[in-house]
Amino acid sequence: MGYNRNEGAILHITGETRVYVVIGHPIAQVKSTHLYNSLAAQSSADVVFIPMQFSAENFERSVDGLRAFKNLAGIIPTIPHKPRMMDVVDSCSERAKIVGAVNSIRVEPDGRWIGDMFDGIGYVNGLIKNGHQPENKSFLIVGAGGAGAAISIALADVGVQRLRIVDIDQGKVERVITNVRANYPDVEIDTGPVVPAEFDVVANATPLGMASDDLLPISPELLRSGQLVTDMIMKPAVTPLLVQAEAKGCVIQVGYEALLGQASANMDFFGLAS
Amino acid sequence: MGYNRNEGAILHITGETRVYVVIGHPIAQVKSTHLYNSLAAQSSADVVFIPMQFSAENFERSVDGLRAFKNLAGIIPTIPHKPRMMDVVDSCSERAKIVGAVNSIRVEPDGRWIGDMFDGIGYVNGLIKNGHQPENKSFLIVGAGGAGAAISIALADVGVQRLRIVDIDQGKVERVITNVRANYPDVEIDTGPVVPAEFDVVANATPLGMASDDLLPISPELLRSGQLVTDMIMKPAVTPLLVQAEAKGCVIQVGYEALLGQASANMDFFGLAS
Repeated sequence: MGYNRNEGAILHITGETRVYVVIGHPIAQVKSTHLYNSLAAQSSADVVFIPMQFSAENFERSVDGLRAFKNLAGIIPTIPHKPRMMDVVDSCSERAKIVGAVNSIRVEPDGRWIGDMFDGIGYVNGLIKNGHQPENKSFLIVGAGGAGAAISIALADVGVQRLRIVDIDQGKVERVITNVRANYPDVEIDTGPVVPAEFDVVANATPLGMASDDLLPISPELLRSGQLVTDMIMKPAVTPLLVQAEAKGCVIQVGYEALLGQASANMDFFGLAS
Repeated sequence: MGYNRNEGAILHITGETRVYVVIGHPIAQVKSTHLYNSLAAQSSADVVFIPMQFSAENFERSVDGLRAFKNLAGIIPTIPHKPRMMDVVDSCSERAKIVGAVNSIRVEPDGRWIGDMFDGIGYVNGLIKNGHQPENKSFLIVGAGGAGAAISIALADVGVQRLRIVDIDQGKVERVITNVRANYPDVEIDTGPVVPAEFDVVANATPLGMASDDLLPISPELLRSGQLVTDMIMKPAVTPLLVQAEAKGCVIQVGYEALLGQASANMDFFGLAS
C-alpha cells in the first residue's frame, strides 16, 4: 500500500501544535490521517491530523465551532461535506469552483479559509503512476457527487477522449456535464446506459462498497476482461466491486492510489512539503 | 520533569481513533497533551489528545460544535473554561460541585457528558509524593479561581489545619470560604493580609507568571527561607515566583507535579488506565 503501517509517526503534541481535521460522516473508514501525520513528521512541522466526525444535519454548528478553534491549521473534508464546504470558505481556486466542491482548506494566519480541490488530481496521478495514461481513453464514471465531479474535471483537463457519467441523481449528472462542456469543449461527455464493456476504464465514484451490505455500484457480469476498474473507496482497501472485477480478469486500481497522489498536492498546499 | 520529552508517543491515528481535546485560551503553554498521549500509548487505547484553543467569548459556539463532534471521547478544560463547563455537562461528581468547576469530562457512549475535578487531588498527590505531608499544615493560597478553589477543597479534604485564600475578586474568595466551611467545618479558613511568612506553604493558583511581563503574584521579599512555595503553572516550568523563592531559600514545587498527580486520576476516569 505504499507505506509501512507499523512505522507510525512520532508525534509530540503540545499546546503549540497546530491541528488539521479530517471531517466526515461516517469517519471510521478514514486512513488519510495516518498518511498525513507520517508526511508531516518528515517535514518536522509541529502539526497533527485528526479525524472529526459530524453529520450533515450538524454541518452549520460544527463549522461554526471550527471557526472559533484558534489553533486550527486546516480542514480536509470527506463525504458528505465537500460540496457544502464550498459555501463556507472565504475564497477558493478556479479548479474547486469548476468541481463545485473543496477537499482541502488552509487556515491563513489572519483566519481566512482558503479552499482547493485535489481529489481528481490525485486520482489522475494514481493512474499515470501505475502506467494507465488517461489521454484519449474512454471512462465510465459511476457517481456524480463530489468524487465523480472531481475526477471528471481532472480527466477532462488531461485530455481524455470520452466520458460517460451516471448517477441516480440526474441533477448532479447534468451539473458535471454542463461544467465539462463549458470548460473542456473538446472532450465528449454524456450520460446514458451503464455499458461498462464499451469503455477503457470504469470508475466507481459512489460510496457503495463502504458498508458490507451495500449493493455493488456496477454488475460485475457487465465488465470486460482486461479493462481497468478503479475505486475511490479507502476502506475496505479492496472493495467488493474490485474483488469481482479481478475475478473477471480486469486490471484494478484501489482508492488508496488516489489518496497517495492527492496527499503530496495537499501537503504542498498546506506548506508542509518536506 | 518525570518523563522523557524525546521518547514521544507512537500514534497511529485513523478514522477509528477517538479524540480527547484539551481546551483553553491561551493554549501554547499546554504540555499535558504529550503526557496523556504517552500514558494512552501504554494502555494501547486508540485515542489521541490534542489542544483546542477557543476564547471565553466563543464558549457557547465552541461547546455547541463539540457536542456535534461524534468521535469526541472527552474534554480536559483548562483556563478559562473550567467553571463554565460545570453548566454544560449532563452530570458531575460531588467533588466538582463543591469546587464549582470541572477539569475532566468523559463522553459516554450515549453522548452524555460526565464531569469531574482532579485538579486539587493532583496538587495534593504531588505534595505527598515529594514528602510534604499537608495534614495539620497552614497554607496561603493566592487565587480563588478554578485552581485555587480545587486545591482549597482538596487540602481541606486531607485535613490541613488552616487555609488563607486571597484574590482580587472577593466574590470568588467568599465562595471558596463558604464551601470549605460547609463541607469541612474542622478546617480554619479565612481571607486577609498577604503575610506568606506566617504559613507553612504558599501556593500560587493565579495565572500570573505565564506571560513574561506578568507581575509576581506575591512579593518575594515577604517569603521566609525554608517554607514551601508551589505553583500550578506549567509553562514556564519554573515560574519567576519560584525562581525568586528558590533564591530566598524556599523549597519549591513546580506545576508539573500537580499535573502528574492528576494525570493518573484522569486516565482512570477515562477508562484508559494501563
